[in-house]
Amino acid sequence: MSWLARYQAVRAQSQALCAPLLPEDTVVQPMLDVSPPKWHLAHTTWFWETFLLKEYAAGYQVFHPEYAFLFNSYYNSLGSRVNRADRGTLSRPALADVLAYRAHVDGAFAKLLAAPQLLPLVFYELLELGLQHEQQHQELLATDIKYILSTSPLAPAYLVEEADERPRSAPSAASWLSVPGGIHRIGFQEEGFCFDNELAAHDVLLAPFELQNRLVTNADYLTFMAAGGYRDFRYWMGEGWDLAQAEGWEAPLYWVKKEGDWFRFTHHGLQAVELTAPVTHISFYEADAYANWAGARLPTEAEWETAARHFEAVTDGGTWLESSQFDPQPVPIDADPTQCHQLLGDCWEWTYSAYHAYPGYARAAGALGEYNGKFMVNQLVLRGGSCATPENHIRVSYRNFFHADKRWQFTGIRLARSVESTNK
Amino acid sequence: MSWLARYQAVRAQSQALCAPLLPEDTVVQPMLDVSPPKWHLAHTTWFWETFLLKEYAAGYQVFHPEYAFLFNSYYNSLGSRVNRADRGTLSRPALADVLAYRAHVDGAFAKLLAAPQLLPLVFYELLELGLQHEQQHQELLATDIKYILSTSPLAPAYLVEEADERPRSAPSAASWLSVPGGIHRIGFQEEGFCFDNELAAHDVLLAPFELQNRLVTNADYLTFMAAGGYRDFRYWMGEGWDLAQAEGWEAPLYWVKKEGDWFRFTHHGLQAVELTAPVTHISFYEADAYANWAGARLPTEAEWETAARHFEAVTDGGTWLESSQFDPQPVPIDADPTQCHQLLGDCWEWTYSAYHAYPGYARAAGALGEYNGKFMVNQLVLRGGSCATPENHIRVSYRNFFHADKRWQFTGIRLARSVESTNK
Amino acid sequence: MSWLARYQAVRAQSQALCAPLLPEDTVVQPMLDVSPPKWHLAHTTWFWETFLLKEYAAGYQVFHPEYAFLFNSYYNSLGSRVNRADRGTLSRPALADVLAYRAHVDGAFAKLLAAPQLLPLVFYELLELGLQHEQQHQELLATDIKYILSTSPLAPAYLVEEADERPRSAPSAASWLSVPGGIHRIGFQEEGFCFDNELAAHDVLLAPFELQNRLVTNADYLTFMAAGGYRDFRYWMGEGWDLAQAEGWEAPLYWVKKEGDWFRFTHHGLQAVELTAPVTHISFYEADAYANWAGARLPTEAEWETAARHFEAVTDGGTWLESSQFDPQPVPIDADPTQCHQLLGDCWEWTYSAYHAYPGYARAAGALGEYNGKFMVNQLVLRGGSCATPENHIRVSYRNFFHADKRWQFTGIRLARSVESTNK
Amino acid sequence: MSWLARYQAVRAQSQALCAPLLPEDTVVQPMLDVSPPKWHLAHTTWFWETFLLKEYAAGYQVFHPEYAFLFNSYYNSLGSRVNRADRGTLSRPALADVLAYRAHVDGAFAKLLAAPQLLPLVFYELLELGLQHEQQHQELLATDIKYILSTSPLAPAYLVEEADERPRSAPSAASWLSVPGGIHRIGFQEEGFCFDNELAAHDVLLAPFELQNRLVTNADYLTFMAAGGYRDFRYWMGEGWDLAQAEGWEAPLYWVKKEGDWFRFTHHGLQAVELTAPVTHISFYEADAYANWAGARLPTEAEWETAARHFEAVTDGGTWLESSQFDPQPVPIDADPTQCHQLLGDCWEWTYSAYHAYPGYARAAGALGEYNGKFMVNQLVLRGGSCATPENHIRVSYRNFFHADKRWQFTGIRLARSVESTNK
Repeated sequence: MSWLARYQAVRAQSQALCAPLLPEDTVVQPMLDVSPPKWHLAHTTWFWETFLLKEYAAGYQVFHPEYAFLFNSYYNSLGSRVNRADRGTLSRPALADVLAYRAHVDGAFAKLLAAPQLLPLVFYELLELGLQHEQQHQELLATDIKYILSTSPLAPAYLVEEADERPRSAPSAASWLSVPGGIHRIGFQEEGFCFDNELAAHDVLLAPFELQNRLVTNADYLTFMAAGGYRDFRYWMGEGWDLAQAEGWEAPLYWVKKEGDWFRFTHHGLQAVELTAPVTHISFYEADAYANWAGARLPTEAEWETAARHFEAVTDGGTWLESSQFDPQPVPIDADPTQCHQLLGDCWEWTYSAYHAYPGYARAAGALGEYNGKFMVNQLVLRGGSCATPENHIRVSYRNFFHADKRWQFTGIRLARSVESTNK
Repeated sequence: MSWLARYQAVRAQSQALCAPLLPEDTVVQPMLDVSPPKWHLAHTTWFWETFLLKEYAAGYQVFHPEYAFLFNSYYNSLGSRVNRADRGTLSRPALADVLAYRAHVDGAFAKLLAAPQLLPLVFYELLELGLQHEQQHQELLATDIKYILSTSPLAPAYLVEEADERPRSAPSAASWLSVPGGIHRIGFQEEGFCFDNELAAHDVLLAPFELQNRLVTNADYLTFMAAGGYRDFRYWMGEGWDLAQAEGWEAPLYWVKKEGDWFRFTHHGLQAVELTAPVTHISFYEADAYANWAGARLPTEAEWETAARHFEAVTDGGTWLESSQFDPQPVPIDADPTQCHQLLGDCWEWTYSAYHAYPGYARAAGALGEYNGKFMVNQLVLRGGSCATPENHIRVSYRNFFHADKRWQFTGIRLARSVESTNK
Repeated sequence: MSWLARYQAVRAQSQALCAPLLPEDTVVQPMLDVSPPKWHLAHTTWFWETFLLKEYAAGYQVFHPEYAFLFNSYYNSLGSRVNRADRGTLSRPALADVLAYRAHVDGAFAKLLAAPQLLPLVFYELLELGLQHEQQHQELLATDIKYILSTSPLAPAYLVEEADERPRSAPSAASWLSVPGGIHRIGFQEEGFCFDNELAAHDVLLAPFELQNRLVTNADYLTFMAAGGYRDFRYWMGEGWDLAQAEGWEAPLYWVKKEGDWFRFTHHGLQAVELTAPVTHISFYEADAYANWAGARLPTEAEWETAARHFEAVTDGGTWLESSQFDPQPVPIDADPTQCHQLLGDCWEWTYSAYHAYPGYARAAGALGEYNGKFMVNQLVLRGGSCATPENHIRVSYRNFFHADKRWQFTGIRLARSVESTNK
Repeated sequence: MSWLARYQAVRAQSQALCAPLLPEDTVVQPMLDVSPPKWHLAHTTWFWETFLLKEYAAGYQVFHPEYAFLFNSYYNSLGSRVNRADRGTLSRPALADVLAYRAHVDGAFAKLLAAPQLLPLVFYELLELGLQHEQQHQELLATDIKYILSTSPLAPAYLVEEADERPRSAPSAASWLSVPGGIHRIGFQEEGFCFDNELAAHDVLLAPFELQNRLVTNADYLTFMAAGGYRDFRYWMGEGWDLAQAEGWEAPLYWVKKEGDWFRFTHHGLQAVELTAPVTHISFYEADAYANWAGARLPTEAEWETAARHFEAVTDGGTWLESSQFDPQPVPIDADPTQCHQLLGDCWEWTYSAYHAYPGYARAAGALGEYNGKFMVNQLVLRGGSCATPENHIRVSYRNFFHADKRWQFTGIRLARSVESTNK
């Protein structure tokens, strides 16, 4: 696939995600973490313009002089910008203006990439980064759109779901799979692209441990809820407990009880809770409380990656953005209980590892040094990708990160436990 | 003019105001006081549906069961509602849905008012109230749209202004006009409609006083600014001074300095400050500070109304919503300096009177008792209407009210002063 | 009484109020409106030092160069100062330091006032103002001490109350007294001192009205509470209702229910609610809601003063600071129901008049221009003094003022009503 | 030393720390993290009463029934309690009451520990925990007292410092010391007491690294400041940069510039910045920014402990609470540059490790399960103790933890760096 074809495919995917939206849907910011869809469409375009076209496309004309102020996300290197909290107060530029901006930049890329001139190696590195960056915003688009539509009492559907004819398995117990201890190498060790935060690959010493063969399901989680999990502080981190009380949490985000039954707001409107599907939209605090209640724990990121390598996790079979399901799916009814399922796709899995720099990590020079490095404190690592991640965007070494209180991503729970008498 | 024709004219006017907007513009709420235009369009419709159609139109079908929750403004009598601060987080129902809601209600009215059956008198009272209510929201639409468009650094124009060919007068001094003291009657005493807060008409005792023959101009106000008016606490109310410092006020709302010159954001985009036009978009605090600096004071509402009756103020010649100017206009170059100008139209004039009930005021029974009465503390009265008021909406007894810090309405300054040796 | 004797008596009274306190009690600021007692003791001293000693006492040495920063309350004219919200964070200077500061200033006054030299007239005007100012802070000391002690679950008594042997009357209905309409003169018209906000005396036109012959009692108020007064928005101003909901108000400040009975925290510890005593510690919102529920209204300040002059209100018989009761007292069992009781003393009476400047009011030049004038918006007038007011501090023209939400002063309710068919 | 003697020595030390205070100083809470000294004195006493006397002292009478509500810090297991933010609003119980509470509990312990009866083993475990707990609050007392006194512009000294006659070394460069890589065991492995968060001891794999032989000095830090370290976002974590901008940080906490020179508020009043002393009162954000600027990094906690074990760190020679210096001290002028100094005492050293549970960690049952475990997210580990730590309270495995923004503890910086070509 040529660079131009890849570029155009990724760019088209972003716009396709917004196709079901009305212009009104592309403007609002119902909470700080959510950005308006037209902001995502414009910000990704600004990224291409700023880091590639302005540097490498001779004679490129900037689309609008104010857009750098409007669509810079967080790069102090690139000057002042709209306060993040104010993104949802700007009706202009309108969606049509943003689409024109996209077309302008896409035209410039078509011309640049079609030309026979030799571009320097760093250009192609930035091109790859730009594609990865736009894919990250595709995931955010999917989750932000969900949040935006959820705030209306009309519970509008983003997509009208077709009836799912697959046979549903009955809820069944998870099984524990062993992972051997010892010195393991984690971090990116393959060919191709990775983010700088996956480097340097390095050795870690692990005690042997066990991992559950699937994600925690809604059935599992309902048991926790029924057992009073949201009312018993003993399972909770202190800051999580205080937040849960202040916010009145009693179920995952998007869950509503109607006449005694639990429903979930989804991309397909309000749906009954599917028992065998993985629980999702839970904070680290909830994931951790669930694990405590279950007598288990969350894996560290080193354990997770080691297990993923040990079980030779592949993207095939996982639920990805491309499926338009926008929801994690149950393990197939005929799945092998001795295999480890759902490691890649479906839900980002909270780990009990702070998002810190790996040994040997160094921020890049220039504005792109702000891409990852400045966030490496106060957040937790999540692994494995989700049903909103483009399938070719993920790796076993991929490190996602959110604050412990965040719930609007497709986050889930994978339980681990230590093996008795280990490491003595 | 038939009731139906009046109804249709008022309803059409609201939609005409939104015609220059994009759907994106109708959604956002960049500050608490501003409501999204599509909310205004829906709320006024809900008012008609709730207070008239549900009561008097036999067989009327409510358009949507959730709309009462979505579009109730502040009526506790009518149940829970969207938090005011969250109006700008809801993308749905979309503009098209709201327009369909309007059409549904307008159709029901056309049918109801065309029918030969006799409706009770209270229906026609509510019909009149509904028209007045919708006109009030037209003024808010005009001012909220201005605020919404102003937040974008693109400074988009709501209307493209045609070149104004009228000769502009040079700035000139205002003159002082005398109003005799004694017992005067204020409050509504005419035929036709008034709001309940204009009643009961009652006598007041006034000392003789003087009023300026025109509104304070931008030229006047620039002198105040140049004299350090925004930097000298001695002119200011304490709460106003603290706010002005905290917010960094140094000019009216919407003023921006570019290369040494002051410009104003208007419905026609960014425009140079017109010296002879009335200053507008100032808080009570600024109006009061200006008056103190000028060695004068603001009139009380009793003084204002007495003067308006004394000078036989008429709406003719004022600037109104219908002009599509959306800006107060200078006194004509050939205006008589012995006459009192701009009493009606152009700018709401801050008075130094708290918005309290008149003697004998009583709240209406039922939900409409919440229309005016519950606001009768902590606000100040403004008089005379503005360039965003429909011309047939105003009276000399009309009482508008805002908190002392509000600046987004077309507010202005009329100076008064006491006559020496009065009342001794 | 000589100036020196008056000075010393007032100064001694301030310290006597603090005598029952521990040093710990003099430091804290449990809410923004409350100042630490040692701050009051120091601020009043700073006032004397700043406005009198520094100007008129030759060779006076300022006690400490930092105290002007620490103990300036709100005078912008006199430079920067401790943020009001931070008064309770400063343990130093300690109480003993503040008492030494008082002694230093008192010594300078003893020397200055004992000397035979002639001081200018303005000095004596400032001396009078200083005495009045310190008396105002005595009232605040009494109410702030109450609030401070109330925050502890130990409910400590400021004074141990002696058993009250007076016979208590049974609750009885209030009677309505008539006040004639017409032109009345209000504002200060007597000899002696008044604050600038009581001037200029001026004529007002009033319709005839009626006033209740006593304050609303706890028994009255309990009836309102039992009738659901705190749960029915129809009686409330909108901003008051929202506040009452947010704060969970269901009784006056300091009321607590224990095993089904209402008690009140007082200067004498927790006490049963005395039915015949006036209700106190209620906001304007509650006073107004009560009046609405009772089918009456609050008087305007012009009505109140006119009534007080009409009924020839005197301080004798009222409850004042000097009584050390620190609580409004019931009307005596043998009181004449045709007389108007409790107009002076016991409770500040909320009026439905905004605290605005009287006609002809002008701020004084210099720092003292900030004493009253800059507060003349957004607050309501209260009249008559309270059980925490020094008896010789009050006048029928005295204007006190607080925001509508304030409850920690000894505020009460006097009902008024218009006479039918008035003013037509 | 007998248990009783130890108990009495620790208890006496807490009170000795408060001896230089006035009652006023013991009440205030100038920021959320700071607790009033009398609260510390009471809370530690409540701990003894709750966990030991009520369980093991037959016939023990609780001192006051409300004290459990007042002095419970954060134990949800033990019921509701004063909001943490309100600790500084309570003047009662007064200091004298709290001292009486201490005497009551101390008397009960004297009786209990003098008795010949056999107490169960768990009692002695709790006794040890109580002693450690009270020592932790001694450190907080020292740092909270400093903060409390610092808020007054009078800059009062807690202790009057005696002239320090020791020769001061000139600032000199730090040297780098090597620590070998490999598998190392960290966590508590010795005899005696440790907190549960130091367990289980476990093996970690480290690459070889280097550590500086001393803490970063004020001279070093002034170089960073002079180089614009507080104005260059490239060195900073994003959340740290935003906070530093919002708060206007330009130096460590307690630093003030007077006439061009930097001074520091200390327990001995305002003092010139001593160049060779360790920099202290810096947040993790500043420590990390300094390290980035210096081309180095902070050690992980595993590196720190491994180094401390490698260099056989001892408490002797460090600066501790018992010295009453209340400030980290320079490395002696004749110190061996090939040795690693200041590992124990002087300053808590920020590590780049999140405060998470060690492998195998389990919360204790009951209320004491809330002691450590519920804080194990969102904070960073600090190691080594400080000049406010009792000397016998520390261990090389001791894990302290604070949020990244905290500055009021005696925190300092130890630089580490990776060895080139490691781990490849």
